[in-house]
Amino acid sequence: MAARQDTKKAPQQAPQEDNAAERLEAMGRSLLIDINNGTPPKFTTTARTRSNIIFDESKGYLKLGPVKEERNFLNISQSKRFMQTIAIASKCHKFLNENLHTTIRGLYYQLKFSLGEDVDENIFSEQSESNPLIEDLEVALGVNRENLNLNANRKGVLAGRMKVIDRFGDEKTEIDCSKQGRSGWAIPSDVDNDIEFVDIDAKYVLVVEKDALWQRLNEDGLWKKENAILITPQGQAARGTRRIIRKLADKGLPIYVFTDSDAWGWYIYWTIKTGSINLAYIGSDVATPEAKFIGVTMSDLDKYEFLNKMTIHATEVDLKRAQEMLDYTWIRGNKGWVNELQRMIKSKKKLEQDALQGPRLTFVDDYINEKIRNKEYLS
Amino acid sequence: MAARQDTKKAPQQAPQEDNAAERLEAMGRSLLIDINNGTPPKFTTTARTRSNIIFDESKGYLKLGPVKEERNFLNISQSKRFMQTIAIASKCHKFLNENLHTTIRGLYYQLKFSLGEDVDENIFSEQSESNPLIEDLEVALGVNRENLNLNANRKGVLAGRMKVIDRFGDEKTEIDCSKQGRSGWAIPSDVDNDIEFVDIDAKYVLVVEKDALWQRLNEDGLWKKENAILITPQGQAARGTRRIIRKLADKGLPIYVFTDSDAWGWYIYWTIKTGSINLAYIGSDVATPEAKFIGVTMSDLDKYEFLNKMTIHATEVDLKRAQEMLDYTWIRGNKGWVNELQRMIKSKKKLEQDALQGPRLTFVDDYINEKIRNKEYLS
Repeated sequence: MAARQDTKKAPQQAPQEDNAAERLEAMGRSLLIDINNGTPPKFTTTARTRSNIIFDESKGYLKLGPVKEERNFLNISQSKRFMQTIAIASKCHKFLNENLHTTIRGLYYQLKFSLGEDVDENIFSEQSESNPLIEDLEVALGVNRENLNLNANRKGVLAGRMKVIDRFGDEKTEIDCSKQGRSGWAIPSDVDNDIEFVDIDAKYVLVVEKDALWQRLNEDGLWKKENAILITPQGQAARGTRRIIRKLADKGLPIYVFTDSDAWGWYIYWTIKTGSINLAYIGSDVATPEAKFIGVTMSDLDKYEFLNKMTIHATEVDLKRAQEMLDYTWIRGNKGWVNELQRMIKSKKKLEQDALQGPRLTFVDDYINEKIRNKEYLS
Repeated sequence: MAARQDTKKAPQQAPQEDNAAERLEAMGRSLLIDINNGTPPKFTTTARTRSNIIFDESKGYLKLGPVKEERNFLNISQSKRFMQTIAIASKCHKFLNENLHTTIRGLYYQLKFSLGEDVDENIFSEQSESNPLIEDLEVALGVNRENLNLNANRKGVLAGRMKVIDRFGDEKTEIDCSKQGRSGWAIPSDVDNDIEFVDIDAKYVLVVEKDALWQRLNEDGLWKKENAILITPQGQAARGTRRIIRKLADKGLPIYVFTDSDAWGWYIYWTIKTGSINLAYIGSDVATPEAKFIGVTMSDLDKYEFLNKMTIHATEVDLKRAQEMLDYTWIRGNKGWVNELQRMIKSKKKLEQDALQGPRLTFVDDYINEKIRNKEYLS
């Protein structure tokens, strides 16, 4: 996909926005040719329906299948959506020309403003109408929304021996991720365009579900002592955080994920690893099938006696989710995971990563080091 | 309060943790004296009940009233809570001695671990039991939880001409908040201890509710052109963000707040300004009564014609909240605010800050500059 290729480009080459702008222009020209030829203007995208989302077993992530969809201007059931999609394409082309970014909410308000000028009715009455059409466009053009200058929500923090060269606005700044004190570097929405990651000096990447634990490990200097890149997605990983994990894996670094042993923690891990149904349309860009799960696990209860005093009751949601996960293609044959899920269902207990602070605050460091040293992880 | 005084100390003086540790020790000594004298050990805190939360009209923030509560070890209804509070005090004292931080969740697990060693039953079965006792301790000792090495949730980002000297772990780092590119500096949980803010070169502070708008304004370089400190709390402001706004106001900078015109946006503004019921016990530390509200306002609809096309339906929550706010002591006599609230109730419409991107992405910059230049704000 476009964004992935871009990361391999030398930095002096044209940024990818040109690429996206060119694709938008090519799409426009193709519509013009249709019109000039007297054929109905149309464009083709890939279906994002559930039935066209497949798990690629050989690659280990969720992606779209082969089903195509055509949007035809002269088809009465498609003409409004066709027109809306072109309006979105036109706005994104403008943002790229202006070299300015906004969000899908900002885009929605621009559409509400400009398209309402000559007509009484708004062309979009709800943002829920414009959102799927942006995805149509991403898929049809083979670009991500970040390449269309649309920022997604951001969340996530990083510390480690690594520098960020951020060409932003009219300035180029260099941010040293080993000199961010208690804060860490805030992972932006777009980690693909006009940004580079250099001088990476690390043996592995540790992704920690909770910011609280990240702060604990950052204070202990775990990333300094162990030569790691320490990331927290601060819960479910945003697009920018998933992309940077993918990029660090591309540089050959092992990715270890450390979450609670519950439905939410598992979801965070599996989303990082295989991608998600919502983002299946950019699957290979946001999935990291190489990721390993180091804990906490239900099996830790056998190894660390004190943890048995630290379990809490699993909720209905946890138990239901565990049962569902047992049926997933990518889990069914995975003995380690099947065992984890069955243990929770049987005991109706779960375990939080915070519990590792029970004996002493720094116990969590030893736990992680031991897991990684002994290769005690699930795939 | 302790934390406020600390910011005025010269950096070479002892950090405030010593202060908190000394207060914990004094509390311990006073209990020992009680025991040695054969009198029942007890300690006194200020009631945090609703009826003891008052709005200080002269100062403009929510704080605790004069009602005291005594916790007596030999009172059968208080002895468990008394013992629990002492256990918390002891743990916090240990964290201060170790010079390590954790969260109230981490503290809970330590209590679960160590107090369960000799007894069958856990002394705490839920974190909801330990949380209020931490607040008891903060109030009784006159310190904030950050001074007890307990990190709170963090959220919020800052950009501007300002440097952070962060003495963290075994290192001292200097972070230049004007060199953080697209990311900004992530505001930490604790902005009081072992951290300083120097070389502040700004005319005012702009607090922007949504990260999306912060990113927009950061891209336009608003803080560079206008010489501002640009902050987003990323929604409701966390303790660290409220504290840094308070600190910047203490340095004489005007504070302007820019939110949606709806229940949630107003709540964010009023929490920054007057504090909140939950944090009334540290009112003066987290409230910034000097803050002004620059928009978006319902009155903007008269000034900016296009905004009338950008309104959305107010929800039941918005309308109910607006009605409630009309009764607040600090709003009742405030003509500008009463007008805002009544306009929403009448029209059943609301307005988002994102809508200012309608005509062009950079319109929001002009809007803010005009509001500040013409002093068009509500108090």
